[in-house]
Amino acid sequence: SRRAMVRAMGLAGLLLGLFLLPAVLVSTSFRHGGPPTEPAPEPAEWELASSAVREDSLWPLPQGLRTGAGCAGVCVCERAGGGPVAGAVTSGPRRRLCFPGRYYEYMFGQSWRRQRGRRPLGPRAEPELSQLQVVIEARDPGCHSYPPLAPRAAYHLTVTEPVAILKADEVWGALRGLETFSQLVHEDDYGSFLVNESEINDFPRFAHRGILLDTSRHYLPLKSILTNLDAMAFNKFNVLHWHIVDDQSFPYQSIYFPELSDKGAYSYNHIYTPTDVRLVIEYARLRGIRVIPEFDTPGHTQSWGKGQKDLLTPCYSGEYPTGSFGPVNPILNTTYDFMTKFYKEISSVFPDAYIHLGGDEVNFDCWKSNPEVKEFMKKQGFGIDYAKLESYYIEKILDIVSSYNKGYVVWQEVFDNKAQLKPDTVVQVWMGNNYAHELSRVTGAGFTAILAAPWYLDYISYGQDWKKYYSVEPLNFPGSEKQKKLLIGGEACLWGEFVDATNLTPRLWPRASAVGERLWSSSNVTNLQDAYERLTNHRCRML
Amino acid sequence: SRRAMVRAMGLAGLLLGLFLLPAVLVSTSFRHGGPPTEPAPEPAEWELASSAVREDSLWPLPQGLRTGAGCAGVCVCERAGGGPVAGAVTSGPRRRLCFPGRYYEYMFGQSWRRQRGRRPLGPRAEPELSQLQVVIEARDPGCHSYPPLAPRAAYHLTVTEPVAILKADEVWGALRGLETFSQLVHEDDYGSFLVNESEINDFPRFAHRGILLDTSRHYLPLKSILTNLDAMAFNKFNVLHWHIVDDQSFPYQSIYFPELSDKGAYSYNHIYTPTDVRLVIEYARLRGIRVIPEFDTPGHTQSWGKGQKDLLTPCYSGEYPTGSFGPVNPILNTTYDFMTKFYKEISSVFPDAYIHLGGDEVNFDCWKSNPEVKEFMKKQGFGIDYAKLESYYIEKILDIVSSYNKGYVVWQEVFDNKAQLKPDTVVQVWMGNNYAHELSRVTGAGFTAILAAPWYLDYISYGQDWKKYYSVEPLNFPGSEKQKKLLIGGEACLWGEFVDATNLTPRLWPRASAVGERLWSSSNVTNLQDAYERLTNHRCRML
Repeated sequence: SRRAMVRAMGLAGLLLGLFLLPAVLVSTSFRHGGPPTEPAPEPAEWELASSAVREDSLWPLPQGLRTGAGCAGVCVCERAGGGPVAGAVTSGPRRRLCFPGRYYEYMFGQSWRRQRGRRPLGPRAEPELSQLQVVIEARDPGCHSYPPLAPRAAYHLTVTEPVAILKADEVWGALRGLETFSQLVHEDDYGSFLVNESEINDFPRFAHRGILLDTSRHYLPLKSILTNLDAMAFNKFNVLHWHIVDDQSFPYQSIYFPELSDKGAYSYNHIYTPTDVRLVIEYARLRGIRVIPEFDTPGHTQSWGKGQKDLLTPCYSGEYPTGSFGPVNPILNTTYDFMTKFYKEISSVFPDAYIHLGGDEVNFDCWKSNPEVKEFMKKQGFGIDYAKLESYYIEKILDIVSSYNKGYVVWQEVFDNKAQLKPDTVVQVWMGNNYAHELSRVTGAGFTAILAAPWYLDYISYGQDWKKYYSVEPLNFPGSEKQKKLLIGGEACLWGEFVDATNLTPRLWPRASAVGERLWSSSNVTNLQDAYERLTNHRCRML
Repeated sequence: SRRAMVRAMGLAGLLLGLFLLPAVLVSTSFRHGGPPTEPAPEPAEWELASSAVREDSLWPLPQGLRTGAGCAGVCVCERAGGGPVAGAVTSGPRRRLCFPGRYYEYMFGQSWRRQRGRRPLGPRAEPELSQLQVVIEARDPGCHSYPPLAPRAAYHLTVTEPVAILKADEVWGALRGLETFSQLVHEDDYGSFLVNESEINDFPRFAHRGILLDTSRHYLPLKSILTNLDAMAFNKFNVLHWHIVDDQSFPYQSIYFPELSDKGAYSYNHIYTPTDVRLVIEYARLRGIRVIPEFDTPGHTQSWGKGQKDLLTPCYSGEYPTGSFGPVNPILNTTYDFMTKFYKEISSVFPDAYIHLGGDEVNFDCWKSNPEVKEFMKKQGFGIDYAKLESYYIEKILDIVSSYNKGYVVWQEVFDNKAQLKPDTVVQVWMGNNYAHELSRVTGAGFTAILAAPWYLDYISYGQDWKKYYSVEPLNFPGSEKQKKLLIGGEACLWGEFVDATNLTPRLWPRASAVGERLWSSSNVTNLQDAYERLTNHRCRML
């Protein structure tokens, strides 16, 4: 038998080698079923393989994938020792964070618990895989940092006996490669683990692959958010767009302004404390996921008004206030004093380089009714163009946020209303009506864009609507090559009007997986039947 | 204080009195807030109250409901002793099954656990409720039997201090009344329990209030089915229509023909053993719910063919069999031998008086292609009318099932195809296209009907589609008074193409609650805003 218990670690090249599966044997099986000494066939080039992969059903499909042909032989993977061991051998105090033990559990965990009494291994002729070496080539692997705007997410994975090698520039690529490796390993009916000899060269098509969760229309318990982060990692998403507050409730517990959630949350329990927020951010970081918080103003702010006096515009009926309130009041200095302090906190609590500032769907009726706002419009020379007033407000907010060295994302109306924007602004296109034209205009003006319009997953319908999301081609808009490069990705949005902890997961997944593959895989991965089969298996794996 | 710990049991009238909450104090609170000695106002007549009920949000709304006016006072309910006690004091060996302890848990269970250290009660001026007496007036309360076809489900509930009285003819009404009583009890912010002085006279509008679950398209684990039975009881549904097998899989483990599930189930694990089936039936019985199994033939039977040789019709292309199969083969004696034995088992395993025999969507193409079937058609003088062949088959099956003293339910096509039907046949109307006309024809022919067409809840859409289900008026079809009486109820159907354990509950509930109220409450309970508010609270209670 060529089984071997490898406990030593070999450094690959001059770089960092990690011994990921210290007590696990994983055999490769040549698909052509020939003897292990026979070399695997060498395809002449990278295939955009799809039908070749069945048992492992990679999702999203790697950019380049080569596997041995033929059917899989039998091979065995088994733990030698006792309970589960954290995955990575660590050589530094925090290196462990780079290679989480959770992948060991994903691949072998359940089976290991179930099959303690499994038959001992006899001598075998099949080739076996005993180790996965993870090689990070950058001097600083990035284990201590937060996922950057455009992470180096490429990786190269070679699975041949006796050692598989996963190479990446930074930890962000290695995490994606670990996910792929875990998808390659599958269990047969006898409890043995199989992995096909493979060579995978993979990288994302788009840098920004996001999921929007809305915790204002319905509060989502922390557990729901964390489960969703797991699902995102399984689908190689890398941005959680946290639409944390809105008209309906203000669950974010502010350090400077605790009254916002004291009065604006659904209850004292329906809040995210600073500890909760830190936990979400760290849980996301360990999965290579950025957390971009959205604090949407000046509209969608009814809940802010409950805990912050004079922040919202009083609406009038004729000469008299009606007692109801409209968008943030843009004419008061106190508004900007508040926002300066508030966004200072947000900039420090959320480590990501970007904050989402909203700016969508501002209803002008209340501003129009208010005599002081009308007076201010006159003084500023805005005439009756309230979009100018909105831009006046937004530009002040943008300046505040810029002063904290943060970039910002805004909804498309901010661009449409011609607000003065920094060149690194990201414009999120959400209106379903002719979004290709809007992408063309935004990128034509030189701004970076992300696409959400065709991926509002809260809109449900009967049947396999994932095909509709899958069939979207984001770059299918009029524009130059340079413009196309400015579309950096997209987001699947799950607005919360009809979503809470009871239905979040089955409503979002695996429908969002369709968006995940569209944003990661090559543009010519479009075969619906093939996607259906892989997605079916991928769903089982996620469950 | 007028609190009292009542541990003795008083027999009410000459009949059975059950002491349901032996160690619980529940105070009534007069809504007008006056001193307890002041008599509650006496409305002149039964109100179809709706806006009067807020805190308790009864669902479905009782037929007759009278509550004291005004706002609720504070009152307290507390357990005196240690852990939870099963609800009923039993005087016979199985009487306990009549009044399950689960209602104690629903009302007080969580709070009791949470609030062990609650402040002791001081002297109080508010009126208090210390006991619920359940009085069953029939000589045989029905505790040992299965829920009948048309259960006597009426009950009368009087809540006044110090003893509430629930009267019903049989246990089936008492169960509905217990559900209502539990909905009346609500907890205030300080952990006290309130219940409004009430008098409720209630009975169902329709006798058949069903939920269809489909365990063939996707297997549903036992736990999902039981959870659904709980939800059904919360909404006063009384029929589980178990569409247990279909083309896709055969999870029913037959005693006579184990190969049906051995070969026809998705896997060895995806089956319902005889023990599982008994458990479902008993769990349903304890909630006053009938279980009607559906074994749909001759179409929808692909999975039967895997474990039962020669049962299905071989399809032909020209002179040669294609290798694929169509509906059950209606021309072989072996078919009827099999069905005789099979339905004998089903008739004995399922205690309900009815079996659902299906009969929908029979595709004639395969029969048309088969030379032996064509020959048989000629011999029988059916010409080319394959509906006659279908009726030939169905009538034989109906005779078999009748011989076991079972009634049967069939889908509307069986009636449409003019099969000879016993007078007690129940015809289920499911086709969305002009179902009112079909109801008119079925009842015009003197048959009993149940309506499913407008309540296919597997068809999802964005937003509050419960309003659509709620707004259906089942009796709105052309016909005489006598015909209207023949519509005995309806069913909300959740077909399983896109439903499994991951989404069953949030997809079905509370949408099916809309159907539940339509089938239970008076026809003039139609106010959507009122229903929305009660349903919102009812959902929280169910969660």
